[in-house]
Amino acid sequence: MEKLKKFVDSDVFQNTILVVIIINAATLGLQTSQAVMGSIGGILSWIDKICLGIFIVEMLLKMVAYKFWGYFKSGWNWFDFIIILTSVLSGLTILSSIRILRVFRVFRSLKGLRGFKMVSSLKPLQVIIGAIGKSIPGISWTALLLLIIYYIFSIIGVTQFGEAFPDWFGIIPKEMYTLFQVMTLESWSMGISRPVMEVFGYAWAYFVPFVLVSSFVMMNVVVGIVVNAISEVAEINKKEETAEPAALKEDEIKAEIESVREHLAKLEEMLAKQ
Amino acid sequence: MEKLKKFVDSDVFQNTILVVIIINAATLGLQTSQAVMGSIGGILSWIDKICLGIFIVEMLLKMVAYKFWGYFKSGWNWFDFIIILTSVLSGLTILSSIRILRVFRVFRSLKGLRGFKMVSSLKPLQVIIGAIGKSIPGISWTALLLLIIYYIFSIIGVTQFGEAFPDWFGIIPKEMYTLFQVMTLESWSMGISRPVMEVFGYAWAYFVPFVLVSSFVMMNVVVGIVVNAISEVAEINKKEETAEPAALKEDEIKAEIESVREHLAKLEEMLAKQ
Amino acid sequence: MEKLKKFVDSDVFQNTILVVIIINAATLGLQTSQAVMGSIGGILSWIDKICLGIFIVEMLLKMVAYKFWGYFKSGWNWFDFIIILTSVLSGLTILSSIRILRVFRVFRSLKGLRGFKMVSSLKPLQVIIGAIGKSIPGISWTALLLLIIYYIFSIIGVTQFGEAFPDWFGIIPKEMYTLFQVMTLESWSMGISRPVMEVFGYAWAYFVPFVLVSSFVMMNVVVGIVVNAISEVAEINKKEETAEPAALKEDEIKAEIESVREHLAKLEEMLAKQ
Amino acid sequence: MEKLKKFVDSDVFQNTILVVIIINAATLGLQTSQAVMGSIGGILSWIDKICLGIFIVEMLLKMVAYKFWGYFKSGWNWFDFIIILTSVLSGLTILSSIRILRVFRVFRSLKGLRGFKMVSSLKPLQVIIGAIGKSIPGISWTALLLLIIYYIFSIIGVTQFGEAFPDWFGIIPKEMYTLFQVMTLESWSMGISRPVMEVFGYAWAYFVPFVLVSSFVMMNVVVGIVVNAISEVAEINKKEETAEPAALKEDEIKAEIESVREHLAKLEEMLAKQ
Repeated sequence: MEKLKKFVDSDVFQNTILVVIIINAATLGLQTSQAVMGSIGGILSWIDKICLGIFIVEMLLKMVAYKFWGYFKSGWNWFDFIIILTSVLSGLTILSSIRILRVFRVFRSLKGLRGFKMVSSLKPLQVIIGAIGKSIPGISWTALLLLIIYYIFSIIGVTQFGEAFPDWFGIIPKEMYTLFQVMTLESWSMGISRPVMEVFGYAWAYFVPFVLVSSFVMMNVVVGIVVNAISEVAEINKKEETAEPAALKEDEIKAEIESVREHLAKLEEMLAKQ
Repeated sequence: MEKLKKFVDSDVFQNTILVVIIINAATLGLQTSQAVMGSIGGILSWIDKICLGIFIVEMLLKMVAYKFWGYFKSGWNWFDFIIILTSVLSGLTILSSIRILRVFRVFRSLKGLRGFKMVSSLKPLQVIIGAIGKSIPGISWTALLLLIIYYIFSIIGVTQFGEAFPDWFGIIPKEMYTLFQVMTLESWSMGISRPVMEVFGYAWAYFVPFVLVSSFVMMNVVVGIVVNAISEVAEINKKEETAEPAALKEDEIKAEIESVREHLAKLEEMLAKQ
Repeated sequence: MEKLKKFVDSDVFQNTILVVIIINAATLGLQTSQAVMGSIGGILSWIDKICLGIFIVEMLLKMVAYKFWGYFKSGWNWFDFIIILTSVLSGLTILSSIRILRVFRVFRSLKGLRGFKMVSSLKPLQVIIGAIGKSIPGISWTALLLLIIYYIFSIIGVTQFGEAFPDWFGIIPKEMYTLFQVMTLESWSMGISRPVMEVFGYAWAYFVPFVLVSSFVMMNVVVGIVVNAISEVAEINKKEETAEPAALKEDEIKAEIESVREHLAKLEEMLAKQ
Repeated sequence: MEKLKKFVDSDVFQNTILVVIIINAATLGLQTSQAVMGSIGGILSWIDKICLGIFIVEMLLKMVAYKFWGYFKSGWNWFDFIIILTSVLSGLTILSSIRILRVFRVFRSLKGLRGFKMVSSLKPLQVIIGAIGKSIPGISWTALLLLIIYYIFSIIGVTQFGEAFPDWFGIIPKEMYTLFQVMTLESWSMGISRPVMEVFGYAWAYFVPFVLVSSFVMMNVVVGIVVNAISEVAEINKKEETAEPAALKEDEIKAEIESVREHLAKLEEMLAKQ
């Protein structure tokens, strides 16, 4: 059992699976081309099935190695499990394109790599992943505040413009999509706001504040959170590398004073002897 | 009286009101759907009225607890008062959709939460709210500078292009809206500037500088202010957590020197005795 | 002479001129409305002339107070001089709208205010103006690099697409304008790149790299410069406020050691006497 | 040989070549104008050939000075070599416009300038170039993550929308271009997503997550990396200028303690004598 665990955690095993994932991603890409499918479509779908088989074996080996419940302690394993299960089921259904989500496993492998071989060229990646992770709580709260703002503007929009512009403001989901478009500033004025203003002259009082609040304030907050997270993570990485010279200097000073005290003790002794 | 104050400030009371606000927000959302209104419209408008009743009772309780004038010391209470008053009046008028502004009370509750139960997951929210608060003065000044720039460009625009393009540059308010659209870079060239340039060939000398000044310089200033505010607030929060080791070390050094001086005093005494 | 200098530098004089500038800005705005011009157009043009008269008197007073050449040592005075000269000349010509540039004098007044009455609410403005000033060299260099990139892409664009799309790429100035539009990401794909790609299939190899280099890399550099400038200026302002406790502590330590040395000198003396 | 090396590395030689590059860039620009070509086209093409001749001579001189293989140790020289070779060949072919890439040599010269004459006005440029260089690893990793995301969304897009919208999603390269356009937020909704949603109602579940992930998260990461790089480079530059007073103070303290120890040694000596 311990041997099996070492095997599934080994570099060789992990990298082999990574190669299989990349091959699988390539075949999925090739399958989108009709010309390729016409000539070697059969071979590709066979490679596809073999890859899926390897993934199932990998999953089962891990389940045995980690005693089934241990396997489900990792979020990445849950992710694997769900994708493979969906893939097996989608082999029977038309929606087989979901399988390409397996490519996301590459990210997991990258995280795995981080653990044991810390090549220096991977450090910027570590900073990025660390910063994304660190900025998730802040961005989540910003998203919640944004959602409340969306909800308020949605109700106003549906009530005011819903009947005149059913495609954009007819029901709350449509309205939410339109607000998302306005937040990205895409055709918000020439495409949405100006036509609405031709019917409802006061519509600028709805769109301009929404653009200001959603696009400027909130997007800037997201920028701020990410920038802050990156600078914090980068600083921590730097500190780990460089020894703190200031603290060291202070320790030297303490050592010097220590020696002064020893001298004094010697003096006292000498005086006591006299 | 003191008892009532404790009651209206209690977690139980605040959270109950928060739940009522969320229920009210949900019913307001449902009321926008014609299908829902057809089947349970009556019930929804009843829930609406009950919620409003609860809000009035809450307001009155707080007014009694804080002795009326104390109630109006908080900006959030003013906000409540105005919304509830508008809601009561809007019950008589058609513009009842203003009532959904009540949802903004959620923000107040979030602020309330900050005060007494500082859960660690609320810290990023604190940083965001603190940073938004901190960047308001800077953003206000930027807005003022922008307004002056808008005003100057408005007068030029109306004078130059007003007659030929009355929809975009006819009067100063229309011109202001157009400039806002140009600042967000939405269809500024294909939609506005190129058609104007076909009539007035020199129009690029109006739009390009405005885009450079408003969109690039000013929006970057806003980004800079927010980023700076977030990093400052985040730093303050971090400092409060970690004790400052540098200062502590220096205190240790001072203590050591103190002991050296004591040794010396002892020596002097011993010599004096001789 | 000294008295006159004190007078033109006094708060009362500066603020009076500021009020006149604001009045003048307001009348210039009102003059753009045809309805207003129809009823009180005569009064407005009279106020306009009076304001111009006050500005000329102000300029002459300053010239006398600073002995003519001293007046031209300040860039703001040069700015004033040119605007007023243009205004006087434009009174004779049709292009009178240039006069509104006088409103820019407000910025000068803001800068003047900074000098003698440093109200705390003006600090964020100081940070912004300081940061803009500090980021000008960096932005100028970025602009130069961008110009070289523009020039290279312009020559390629005119040579390749000039004949087929004369409106967008016919001559270098038109091409430069188009590239500016592409840099702001306005309709770059649906409006410009896709139509060009229908004629020249390889056009994506021209537009995508330009978007990546100009919009992403260069605009980010501008953001970085401004953010850095703001955080630096904000830090300097903060340092001026707070005394540096670390340096103070080290001075205390030095003082302590000084007293130790004095004790020792006393001891030596005592021993020498024995 | 040594003399030749000194000559090709001298300021005079480098600046002469820089002037020739700028003249060449100007003639290339003038050649795009048909009016100019009609009158002095012959002269321009002669200047062009002379410039090319000078560049070839410069390259050969450097090759001799650095003993051929030493010449190819510098990336900039490789760049030169390829451009000149292409220019010579393109003299025979129609694609002569590639020659303008020679203008990129200006960047090399800027880098050369950095080396020997560090004028203070060049510092911001140094910070920018340093920051761009420093942020390349981080941006490369972000680009890799983005490419994986692009690939996943491409396969989904081609499979789902490929048949209905062959121009946008027909094959993976077209799809990649469309995704790039969506990432820049250009007409992503009105131009692409809304038409697709009319056929496939669920298409928003494809575009909105892509916009969120690619445009918001990833572009913010790029901003964060650049901002961090600029602030780091700017800090390093600042530190080199200012001597570190804190470290100096600690050295002073150490010197003081040293003198205290000397005093003590003297005391001990005195006591030993007694």
